[in-house]
Amino acid sequence: MIIDIHGHYTTAPKALETWRNRQIAGIANPAEMPKASELRISDNELHESIEGNQLKLMRERGLDLTIFSPRASFMAHHIGDFQISSTWAAICNELCYRVSRLFPDHFTPAAMLPQSPGVDPATCIPELVKCVEEFGNVAINLNPDPSGGHWSSPPLPDRHWYPIYEKMIEYDIPAMIHVSTSCNPCFHTTGAHYLNADTTAFMQCLTSELFKDFPTLRFVIPHGGGAVPYHWGRFRGLAQMMEKPLLKDHLLNNIFFDTCVYHQPGIDLLTRVIPADNILFASEMIGAVRGLDPETGHYYDDTRRYIEAAHIDPGERYKIYEANARRVYPRLDAALKAKGR
Amino acid sequence: MIIDIHGHYTTAPKALETWRNRQIAGIANPAEMPKASELRISDNELHESIEGNQLKLMRERGLDLTIFSPRASFMAHHIGDFQISSTWAAICNELCYRVSRLFPDHFTPAAMLPQSPGVDPATCIPELVKCVEEFGNVAINLNPDPSGGHWSSPPLPDRHWYPIYEKMIEYDIPAMIHVSTSCNPCFHTTGAHYLNADTTAFMQCLTSELFKDFPTLRFVIPHGGGAVPYHWGRFRGLAQMMEKPLLKDHLLNNIFFDTCVYHQPGIDLLTRVIPADNILFASEMIGAVRGLDPETGHYYDDTRRYIEAAHIDPGERYKIYEANARRVYPRLDAALKAKGR
Repeated sequence: MIIDIHGHYTTAPKALETWRNRQIAGIANPAEMPKASELRISDNELHESIEGNQLKLMRERGLDLTIFSPRASFMAHHIGDFQISSTWAAICNELCYRVSRLFPDHFTPAAMLPQSPGVDPATCIPELVKCVEEFGNVAINLNPDPSGGHWSSPPLPDRHWYPIYEKMIEYDIPAMIHVSTSCNPCFHTTGAHYLNADTTAFMQCLTSELFKDFPTLRFVIPHGGGAVPYHWGRFRGLAQMMEKPLLKDHLLNNIFFDTCVYHQPGIDLLTRVIPADNILFASEMIGAVRGLDPETGHYYDDTRRYIEAAHIDPGERYKIYEANARRVYPRLDAALKAKGR
Repeated sequence: MIIDIHGHYTTAPKALETWRNRQIAGIANPAEMPKASELRISDNELHESIEGNQLKLMRERGLDLTIFSPRASFMAHHIGDFQISSTWAAICNELCYRVSRLFPDHFTPAAMLPQSPGVDPATCIPELVKCVEEFGNVAINLNPDPSGGHWSSPPLPDRHWYPIYEKMIEYDIPAMIHVSTSCNPCFHTTGAHYLNADTTAFMQCLTSELFKDFPTLRFVIPHGGGAVPYHWGRFRGLAQMMEKPLLKDHLLNNIFFDTCVYHQPGIDLLTRVIPADNILFASEMIGAVRGLDPETGHYYDDTRRYIEAAHIDPGERYKIYEANARRVYPRLDAALKAKGR
């Protein structure tokens, strides 16, 4: 089977965005603050928002299952305080959970966290617990920069983040390290901030001993690892100058890259440089890049085509499509096996 | 001939760093502020700092000429105010000029600017004029983030930067877009901040109409363009969604990438994706990555080896080694031709 480990609910019914805009207006004017219960989206609406979009493309592309989390750019942890983020995360996570109940064979949820700049990440634990224990989430998305482009939180190896890591270890779930909308005018959200965050997170891990403290902690770095595989020699050389172990020993038991790289040469580089054990199939569909590539006539984000054309053997392709996902997301594997898949 | 368009004076005599530390101490305690004249470095010391380092490696690698600018991480525009940066830039630029006089066949200077966060870039013009008119500089390094990792300046297409661009057009010189040391603990300087800045600068140009205002403005994006060539499909797709022209028409008359990518697969991707007309040979030697790659037995930054091994034809190799540099740096070409080279 083919598992896409990186999908967001980018096609949620318009009512969600309307409610969010009312919530944001309510920050300045509390009288306008909507209740969570005022958001009403029917199962029919959810069904329709998926059936003609993600599921249609999954069928066309032969993808079996997507790990599905709230829309990354809408997390916007920089807006409001912890209470605002908490209400918003609960709503978004519940919608992904409901999608997973409507399409249990095709979608498995991953949770966003109610992060807020300057707030202890431990405050996110109750939402995380609920999402894993009640909603069957198999992973979380962790935002290394809840400020939205000002990078005011400590780096990922800082003890600031340890409460989250301890819970991840307890539940045996990975985190995708994924930022949200940039509110810094220097950084375009999907063209700069996302890729920069991927590179930044990797380098934060490289300079640290985080995975000595947490040998089983697993991070998925999306968008093909930002600039990392393209500059793999640079990173190997920097690690060497810092007298760190070889990257395969220092980081590759704990860090995985997805395949959200939207052209054949990029995927060819990724599969040439990074061991197949560390690559997870993904498309982030329907996401940042939605058009048809005039050079190929196919969607930019139809990453399966690139994996099919890559110079890898069937065993490596199986790892990238399925085996690695089962290993990195054990709760997904267990859920699949319980259904005989 | 082979022209390396990206070298910094990373091996300057220790007296330079000592003077800079005194200057930094003088910010808090003006009584300790040293005069520029208190820095004394002899021609012999300069000669020695180059002869056994950059020049030795250039000879070993068969490189003829390096465009040589002050050490990027030492620019540190975030330290002090404009006056501090102004004194420091003048000192550093004079040293590179002196190196170019000692080794006129091997080094041609490029200038750092006395940028300072929140200060109008027009204040940099006098130093730029001196460096071009008196010191024969053929390019500048422009820091898109003088705050050192807080990204508090406007994006490059903002009119904030236009005074610099107007002077660049007048002198027909390009700018390498190069940040300096990160003082944001999230960003490792050479492992994250440099690469992020490259990606960020490219995307700032992509979303803008800067090159409609300045059709002959030329930016060199170092470090192989950060994450850009690896994600070329993503950038093509984003431009398409924004209804921009094809990247080759929208940006590639004005943006050039260097070859500071420290492994063969990275250079192979760069030369496969980016037209040879837009690639400039460079090694940033002696720079961020100084070791021997155990996988090859050669220096990571010996980028000539990768270009030699890349699947490009002799005409493309000639462009990358020499012809593009003569075209992008016309003052270099004129100086070479005046010497019959």
